[in-house]
Amino acid sequence: MEEIKIFTPATIANVSCGFDILGLALDTVGDEMTIKKVSKKGVVITKIIGQDLPLETHKNVAGVAALALLAETESEFGFEIEIDKRIKPGSGIGSSAASSAGAVWAINELLGKPFEISDLVRFAMEGERLATGVAHADNVAPALFGGFTLVRSNEPLDVISIHTPSELYATVIHPQIEVKTSDAREILKTTVPLKDAIKQWGNVGGLISGLYTEDYNLISRSLEDHIIEPIRSILIPAFDAVKQSSIKAGALGCGISGSGPSIFALSKGEEKALEVANAMKSVYNKVGIDYDIHVSKVNKQGIKILN
Amino acid sequence: MEEIKIFTPATIANVSCGFDILGLALDTVGDEMTIKKVSKKGVVITKIIGQDLPLETHKNVAGVAALALLAETESEFGFEIEIDKRIKPGSGIGSSAASSAGAVWAINELLGKPFEISDLVRFAMEGERLATGVAHADNVAPALFGGFTLVRSNEPLDVISIHTPSELYATVIHPQIEVKTSDAREILKTTVPLKDAIKQWGNVGGLISGLYTEDYNLISRSLEDHIIEPIRSILIPAFDAVKQSSIKAGALGCGISGSGPSIFALSKGEEKALEVANAMKSVYNKVGIDYDIHVSKVNKQGIKILN
Repeated sequence: MEEIKIFTPATIANVSCGFDILGLALDTVGDEMTIKKVSKKGVVITKIIGQDLPLETHKNVAGVAALALLAETESEFGFEIEIDKRIKPGSGIGSSAASSAGAVWAINELLGKPFEISDLVRFAMEGERLATGVAHADNVAPALFGGFTLVRSNEPLDVISIHTPSELYATVIHPQIEVKTSDAREILKTTVPLKDAIKQWGNVGGLISGLYTEDYNLISRSLEDHIIEPIRSILIPAFDAVKQSSIKAGALGCGISGSGPSIFALSKGEEKALEVANAMKSVYNKVGIDYDIHVSKVNKQGIKILN
Repeated sequence: MEEIKIFTPATIANVSCGFDILGLALDTVGDEMTIKKVSKKGVVITKIIGQDLPLETHKNVAGVAALALLAETESEFGFEIEIDKRIKPGSGIGSSAASSAGAVWAINELLGKPFEISDLVRFAMEGERLATGVAHADNVAPALFGGFTLVRSNEPLDVISIHTPSELYATVIHPQIEVKTSDAREILKTTVPLKDAIKQWGNVGGLISGLYTEDYNLISRSLEDHIIEPIRSILIPAFDAVKQSSIKAGALGCGISGSGPSIFALSKGEEKALEVANAMKSVYNKVGIDYDIHVSKVNKQGIKILN
């Protein structure tokens, strides 16, 4: 194989109670990337369609992730990367993670899979370090594993693929404003009340249990965030109204996607997810905020080969 | 049925990462109780063997729990309770919970099971309120459901029975000192660093996942407590030495049982659990601390009928 074209998914990190540990992959939103194995060593970003992002390898998240992989293997080849960037940077659905994860996944395929998925997570995290200053795994892990993932620990890195029920759908609305990940991090408090932390880990336990047992009601009860959402939601226009309307429309739960500004909801079944999309849209239509909206099954596969 | 004799198990609450939410039931340690349905209404504690505990119904945890149940049903009968108290109060393995849970479970049986297990948890919690000042569910829930339980939320009460792998064994060593639950609670800080809370809920997610997938290695990696153990362990003699020796002997993990002073370890298989017991004993033998020690399979059934 000399060339591979892939779909690399957008992802929702945190998922209400799972700040910094949980994530899930989407199916209908993602970048397309074409990676070519070439005789000239090194990594070249040949083209980026759709967004104005740096082509210099060391300044591009896909380039940095690819170099992190190549630093751990003897390759007589180099790689050319073309990115059709369909996820808007800064939207809160893992734009940088999709490019980083896609680059290392595709190169691993072209090299005959010398690395495990958990290694690819580690390489892709270097792209995240470039993008956000922190090498976090909560977006790259679901992009690479698919479905729900748990980052049990960052040091040492310990990523677990979590059973994902088949009827889970996500609705994501992206208000056209910018929230920088660094800003969204800075407004958080460095300590939290023990009583809220207990609620949070109770919900994490409930959500993981609900995913394994496919108990949608338990999943719904567990989609609460007592720690981060109350603080970060003030950065997102009409967050409370969008949340209330999506719950009223039948969503299992609703919260901030990653560090925002996108808002996600989970639903059982596509029909419900589409109704939730309408409910979300009507809020932003009423207050006059531009948005993108996506409805997607939770993507159990992760990255997919297109050619 | 006019009379029932039951085994009601000791329990380990918290289980390292799961402060205030997780618990598990033991199989070889517990109280025996005989509950008789009588024509005279009300609840009478007729006899307590083995411990000097109050016989007055309103001062006895089993009595209070039984009254909480009877307050929610029309019963033309009363109940006499005899307790063979084999779990030492204040040991940290759910002594009060065993009596409270046993009383309501047996009365429910004698009445023809008008209540669900989740209702019985609620009634038994009233016994806990008497014993500790707080109506917590983390011991009564595993006693009643068996296996591992998760208290996702206290208000509203939401208890989830978690899949429990068959080869899980517990070793519990009880140093003969007293740690009051109230004291163990008072030394805790009311706020925790966010970074430690994230580690904790990552481990809760990992432990729950490991229980469902029967991944003993993941269970082992997740049995960490970054929040409570560093503080409470100072109340327990030679805690660090006991923990290190049990891990060295092959335990999956080791921590404080409930609010202590008992120390528990989990192991895969009985043989390993017995080796861990020897390792724990040798530490207390060396420093000259008296102890009780128990090795038990995790009890998936909970309370059992003996006659």
